[in-house]
Amino acid sequence: MVGQEHVIDPARIHHEWDAGLDPVLAVNSGDVVHYDLKVAGEGQIWPEANYPECKFDFDTMYNLSGPLWVNGATPGDTLEIELLELTPGSWGWTAFLPGLGLLAEDFADGYVRTFDLTTGPTTVLVPGVEIPLSPFLGVLGNHPGGPGRQLPFPPHRGGGNMDNRHLTAGVTVWLPVLADGALFSCGDPHAAQGDGEVCVSAIECPMTASLRFTLHKQASAVPSFRVPPAAVSQKDAAGYHATMGIDPDLMTGAKTATRAMIDWLCAEHGLSREDAYILCSTAGDLKILEIVDAGMWNVGMTMPLSVFHRG
Amino acid sequence: MVGQEHVIDPARIHHEWDAGLDPVLAVNSGDVVHYDLKVAGEGQIWPEANYPECKFDFDTMYNLSGPLWVNGATPGDTLEIELLELTPGSWGWTAFLPGLGLLAEDFADGYVRTFDLTTGPTTVLVPGVEIPLSPFLGVLGNHPGGPGRQLPFPPHRGGGNMDNRHLTAGVTVWLPVLADGALFSCGDPHAAQGDGEVCVSAIECPMTASLRFTLHKQASAVPSFRVPPAAVSQKDAAGYHATMGIDPDLMTGAKTATRAMIDWLCAEHGLSREDAYILCSTAGDLKILEIVDAGMWNVGMTMPLSVFHRG
Repeated sequence: MVGQEHVIDPARIHHEWDAGLDPVLAVNSGDVVHYDLKVAGEGQIWPEANYPECKFDFDTMYNLSGPLWVNGATPGDTLEIELLELTPGSWGWTAFLPGLGLLAEDFADGYVRTFDLTTGPTTVLVPGVEIPLSPFLGVLGNHPGGPGRQLPFPPHRGGGNMDNRHLTAGVTVWLPVLADGALFSCGDPHAAQGDGEVCVSAIECPMTASLRFTLHKQASAVPSFRVPPAAVSQKDAAGYHATMGIDPDLMTGAKTATRAMIDWLCAEHGLSREDAYILCSTAGDLKILEIVDAGMWNVGMTMPLSVFHRG
Repeated sequence: MVGQEHVIDPARIHHEWDAGLDPVLAVNSGDVVHYDLKVAGEGQIWPEANYPECKFDFDTMYNLSGPLWVNGATPGDTLEIELLELTPGSWGWTAFLPGLGLLAEDFADGYVRTFDLTTGPTTVLVPGVEIPLSPFLGVLGNHPGGPGRQLPFPPHRGGGNMDNRHLTAGVTVWLPVLADGALFSCGDPHAAQGDGEVCVSAIECPMTASLRFTLHKQASAVPSFRVPPAAVSQKDAAGYHATMGIDPDLMTGAKTATRAMIDWLCAEHGLSREDAYILCSTAGDLKILEIVDAGMWNVGMTMPLSVFHRG
C-alpha cells in the first residue's frame, strides 16, 4: 500500500507542547507530509540584523508545525520518521544570549550573526572561514505526554528539541510514542550545527521538509536513528584540529575543550572571540573521548580544517 | 638540522608516574625515538585466556616506556609529538572488570575476550561482526608534575592515559610540559577503541611505535592534536546506527545511550550482552549532541554499520 501525501497548513503553528491543541492533520502509517517551516524567532531577527535591534521573545521563539495525529498510535508504540527532503531557505542567524550557552560565564553580552545561505554548500563566517551547511530539524518530536502546556526547549524521551545534527536528509529516526495519536510536531530548522551546539544556537533558518511516517506497534526505550552512507557528513574529510578537556566532570571538560578551541581560533586564525564561539557552535564537535579512566574524563572538541579557506 | 634517531631500551619500563626515576634516554628537539611497547597486563592475560585464569594486577598493569628527557624542556613549554608509525602486534585483549567501566552496575561479573590481530584491517568479534583496527597509544604523556609516585590511570593536563582513539599514525599531538626535561612516557597500546572506551578497555595489544619530538618554548593550556586527511577514520563511511540518552546529567545520558545500544545489538544482531558491551567499547562512539537545551542534554552513541558483515 502506497501512503498518501499531505501538505500541512504552514500557518498552523504552536510555541509549546500542548495536549489540548487540535491536530492540524491526521495521517495513516506510510503517509508523507510536506512542511514549509518558519525560522525560529521569525519576526524577531531578520537578515543583517544587529543584536541590539533583535527581540528574542522566548514565549514565541519556536514555531512548531503540528500537532500531527497518527491514526492508531498509542503510548508504547514507536513512530518512524524518514527524512525525505530538507531544504533551507535563503538566510539564517546564529546568536548567543546573556545567561545561556555552554560558556555563558565567559560571554556576558549577547551577539548575533546572520548568514547568506544562497552561496552553495558553505556559508561565509568571515573572509577565509566558511561553515559547511548540513540542514536538519532541531525539533522532531512526539508529544512528551502529560496534561497542560510544556516548554518546547528541553528535549524528552519522545524526541522534541534534540538538536541532533546527524538527522539530515536520508536519515531515519525512531521516537517513542507517549500520547494517543503521537501528536508529532517539528520545527526549529538548522542549516548547520556541530555536536554540542555550544553557543546555544545553530544557523537557524526557514526550511521546507518532507517526512514519511510509519507506525510500529512495538516499544523503544529511547530515540534512535540510522544514517545511511550517502548521508554521512564529509566535513572532517580534510582533517581536523582538536582540543581536550580532561576533568572529573564532563560538563567542565566540555567547557575546557571549547575554551581552548576558541583561544586557538583567535590566535591561529584571527577570529574575534565572538565569531570563534559561533564557529564552535556551528561547525565544532564535542566527543566523549573516554569516560572510564580513574575518575578523570576526556572531552574533545574537533574543528574541521575544511572551514579554513586561505585566499 | 635533521634530528637523530634513537631506539629506547624496551626493558626499561615503569608502572607509575615517578619523578624519581632516572631518564632512560635524553633527546634533542627534532629527534625520533623507536619504541617496542608491551601490552597492558603482559603476563596477566594471554592469547585465548579465559577470565577466571587472568590475574589483573593493577600495580603492574601499565608498562610505560620512559621517562624520556627532552633537553631544554621546562614547565610552561609545549612538547610536540609526531606519531610517525604505530604497528600492533599479533594479538590483543578486551575485558571488563567488577566495579569498573561506564556500566559497572549492569555487569557485576568480569569478562575477557582475546583477538587475533593478524587478519587484516578488522578483527572478528563473533562470526559476522568485525571490529575495525585503528592503532594508537592509550598513554602518551609528559610527567604530571609534583613529587613522589602517582597512579598511571587518570589522564592529566600533560596528557598521560588520554585514551584518545584519534591519535593514530600521521597525527600530531601537543602536550604541556609540567616538569623539567618533560619526562615523557608512553605505552598502553590499543588496536581499536571507540570514543568513550565504555567497558574500561580497548583492544589492548603490543605495538611498535616511532615518535618525533619537537620542543616549543611556548605554553599551551591543554593537550591538543591535529588529524591530517590521510589519518581520518573511515569507519563510519558505510553509515551508522545510533541511540540517544536525553538527561540533565551527561554521565547518565551516556549510560542511557550505551544501554540502548547494547539492547539493540542483542535484539538486532544476536550478540550476547557481554560481547555487545565489548563492541560498544571498541567500535562505538559517544558524542555530546547538544549541551545547551534548558538543562536537558543529549548524548549519542553511534555504531558503524561496517562492523556487520552478513554472510
